[in-house]
Amino acid sequence: MELLFLGTGAGVPAKLRNVSSLALLLLEERNAIWLFDCGEATQHQILHTSLKPRKIEKIFITHLHGDHIFGLPGLLGSRSFQGGTTALTVYGPKGIKAYLEAALQLSGTHLKYPLTIVEMEEGILFSDDQFTVEGLLLDHNIASYGFRITEKDKKGTLDAERLKAEGVPPGPLYKKLKDGETVTLEDGRIIAGGDYVGPPQKGRVIAILGDTRPCNNAVILAQHADLLVHEATFSADSAQMAGDYFHSTTAQAAEIARRAKAEALCLTHISSRYSKEDWQELEKEAQSVFPNTKLASDFFKVKVDTQKTTR
Amino acid sequence: MELLFLGTGAGVPAKLRNVSSLALLLLEERNAIWLFDCGEATQHQILHTSLKPRKIEKIFITHLHGDHIFGLPGLLGSRSFQGGTTALTVYGPKGIKAYLEAALQLSGTHLKYPLTIVEMEEGILFSDDQFTVEGLLLDHNIASYGFRITEKDKKGTLDAERLKAEGVPPGPLYKKLKDGETVTLEDGRIIAGGDYVGPPQKGRVIAILGDTRPCNNAVILAQHADLLVHEATFSADSAQMAGDYFHSTTAQAAEIARRAKAEALCLTHISSRYSKEDWQELEKEAQSVFPNTKLASDFFKVKVDTQKTTR
Ligand SMILES: [Zn+2]
Ligand SMILES: [Zn+2]
Repeated sequence: MELLFLGTGAGVPAKLRNVSSLALLLLEERNAIWLFDCGEATQHQILHTSLKPRKIEKIFITHLHGDHIFGLPGLLGSRSFQGGTTALTVYGPKGIKAYLEAALQLSGTHLKYPLTIVEMEEGILFSDDQFTVEGLLLDHNIASYGFRITEKDKKGTLDAERLKAEGVPPGPLYKKLKDGETVTLEDGRIIAGGDYVGPPQKGRVIAILGDTRPCNNAVILAQHADLLVHEATFSADSAQMAGDYFHSTTAQAAEIARRAKAEALCLTHISSRYSKEDWQELEKEAQSVFPNTKLASDFFKVKVDTQKTTR
Repeated sequence: MELLFLGTGAGVPAKLRNVSSLALLLLEERNAIWLFDCGEATQHQILHTSLKPRKIEKIFITHLHGDHIFGLPGLLGSRSFQGGTTALTVYGPKGIKAYLEAALQLSGTHLKYPLTIVEMEEGILFSDDQFTVEGLLLDHNIASYGFRITEKDKKGTLDAERLKAEGVPPGPLYKKLKDGETVTLEDGRIIAGGDYVGPPQKGRVIAILGDTRPCNNAVILAQHADLLVHEATFSADSAQMAGDYFHSTTAQAAEIARRAKAEALCLTHISSRYSKEDWQELEKEAQSVFPNTKLASDFFKVKVDTQKTTR
C-alpha cells in the first residue's frame, strides 16, 4: 500500500507541479491501482512512472473543477488503446456521468472494457472483503468529497513452526486453528487455535480529501487515520485568502490532522504562487502544528505501513 | 510567420511525441498565435516554450478525435486564469460547441474573455485585410478538415530614396504614388507611381490538414502552398493499414505535396509504433517522392519565408 503523487499543484499546471492526481498502489493487496482525481496530463505523468494504466481499477473524483477532471477522457481512452480490458469504475459527483459519456461519444472513443460511472452520495461508496471506501462532503464552492479508505482487519498469523515442532501435522486442521477453533488431535491432545495465533493485524486507514476549507467532515474522515492527504493551497499567513477561495492553508491542514489524531499528513494542491524555494517553509509551517507532515511533490511516494499495535 | 509543432504524435501521448497541436506564430504580422488542434497537455507543452497563452487569438480544430481536442477545456481555462482578456475564437466541426460549453460549465470555469465558438462548414472560415482561412473536408472516419491559410498580397515598396533624390518632396503624395497613381508636381513634372514601386509581395500560403487518407481536397488546399503540413501516421510499406485506419503513409503525404506543387512539406501525427531510430528512415521515404520534406518532432520550428518572386 503506497501513495504515488502524480500531480500536486493547484488550479493550473506548472512546470514542477501538475494538476491533481494521486495513485493509491494496491499491487500487493489486489494487483490494482486506484486513482484519486485525474487532472489534465495525468496519463502523461503516468508515462514517467512504472504504473500500468490497465491496472487502474477505480477512479475516485473528489470534485468537478477542471484541474481535477480534464485528464479523465484521455486516460480512459488510452487505457483502452493500450490493451486494457478489465472493468473500470469511476466514482464522482453528480454531472460526471453526462460529462464523460459526452466526451467519449463526441470523440469517437470506443472503450474495449466495461466502464461503470457511479454518481456519488455521502456514505459507503464501495466495500468488499479487503476495503471499504466512504465519502463525505467537504466545504468548497462546489460539491467536493473526501474519502476514507479502510482496509479490513486481518486475522493474526498462525505460528505453524511451533505447531510442527509440537508434532501437530500440517493440513486442513491448520485452517481451523487459524480461525481460532479448538480441535482434538488423533492422539487425544486438545489444541486451542487462540494459543497459536498472533494478534489480529489492524487494517490501515487512509483519508484523501478534495479541495476544502477546514471542516468537521475532514476530521471525521481522518479520525485515527494512518495517513491523511489534505490540500494546502496557501501558506499559513493567508488564511483570509484561503477562506475566500474555499481552500486551506498549511497550518489549517495540520490542525485537521492534529484534531483527527492522524498518524501522518501529506500536503498537496500547492499553489503555483509558491516557488521551489518556498516549499520547505510551507512544510515547516504545518510541522509546527503537526510534526509528522510531508509536503508532497510530483512523483513523491509514501508507503503506508501496517500498524504494529492496535489503536 | 513560423510554425511551432507542439505535439506530433498519433492517438495517444508518448514520452517523445505528445498528441496533436501546432502553433502558427503571427507575432510580427498581428502579435497573435493561432493554434491548430489542441490535444491533451497542449498547455503543458506551451509551458516549455516562450508562447503566451493570452496571445492565442484563434484555435482551429481539424476534427473531434480525443487526441486533437482533449486539451481544449484546460487551455481555455488557464488562458483566463493567467490573465488573458482578449477575445478568442474556436473553429471546429459540429459538436465542438456543445462539448466545450458543457465542459466549461460543469467544471465551473468562468472565462474572463469573450469566447466565440464557430461550428464550421466547408468554405471561407475567416477573412480580414491580412489573412483568409478556408476549410475543406478530408477523408477520415469522422468529419476532418484541412485548412488553407492565405496571406494577402502586399503592395510593392515605394522607392522613396530615388524620389527624394529626384527632388520629389515627401508628403501625402507618396501614398498616392505607392498606390500606383500618376501625379503632377507643382513644377509641372508628371510622375507615374508604377515607375517607383517595386513588384507586389506575394502573400504566403500554408496548408494544415487534419487526419486523412490521401484525397483530392488535400491537393486543392495545398496547391502551390509555401508549406504543407500533412499527417504521416504510418511508414511507406503500411499503405493497407493506413487505408484501413483512415490515415496516410509518409510516401502518400509526399505524393500529395508533389501533386499540389507545394514548396515544402512537414510530416506530423507519427505513430508511436515508430521509435526514434526509425524517424530518419520515415523522413527519407517521403523525401524520395518529395525532396523538400521534414519530419516534425515536438518543438520543431519552421519559418515560412516570403517568396522572392511571384509564382
Ligand atoms: Zn483544485
Ligand atoms: Zn489523430
